[in-house]
Amino acid sequence: MVKLVVCYGTPEDPADFDRHYIETHVPLVHPIPGLKRFEHGKVLGTPDGAPAPYYYMAELWFDSPADLQAGMGSSEGEAAGADVATFATGGVTLMIAEAA
Amino acid sequence: MVKLVVCYGTPEDPADFDRHYIETHVPLVHPIPGLKRFEHGKVLGTPDGAPAPYYYMAELWFDSPADLQAGMGSSEGEAAGADVATFATGGVTLMIAEAA
Repeated sequence: MVKLVVCYGTPEDPADFDRHYIETHVPLVHPIPGLKRFEHGKVLGTPDGAPAPYYYMAELWFDSPADLQAGMGSSEGEAAGADVATFATGGVTLMIAEAA
Repeated sequence: MVKLVVCYGTPEDPADFDRHYIETHVPLVHPIPGLKRFEHGKVLGTPDGAPAPYYYMAELWFDSPADLQAGMGSSEGEAAGADVATFATGGVTLMIAEAA
């Protein structure tokens, strides 16, 4: 499997981010075609107490790189991606990673 | 659940990193008490072709923050943590995140 890893920087208004993520963004992610697993949550900290580089992380698992590309390129994937720009006020880092 | 997210920067010798990770590090992670799920793999790239900030990612899932702390503080967790310093020549970023 492969996964799209989405790392959100600390937003300008965390409470607003949290609300938008759960109420608006999550319902846009679930219908993405080929999505096999979706996990998301707050970064709670670091083991040594250093500042964490991200505020929130999400991962979207697909069976293959082709499925990931097709899913994220679908109308549902495009809608979820477009939504990110509306609430990721702390920036976002995207990576595609092997998941085994 | 919560997870320990381990993000490795690009190592000095990727082939050596890959070999050490699979042959030595993975066998040290699996016995960590309370570990519920372990996933690891290479970062393949980014959706827009920008350079990825990390070379390799691993995640260790536990039932609770207390279980994570106990597992990583056990002799098995300490051994796996100590091993990281021997091969993470590109640096390592650790985060604890909610996983739901």
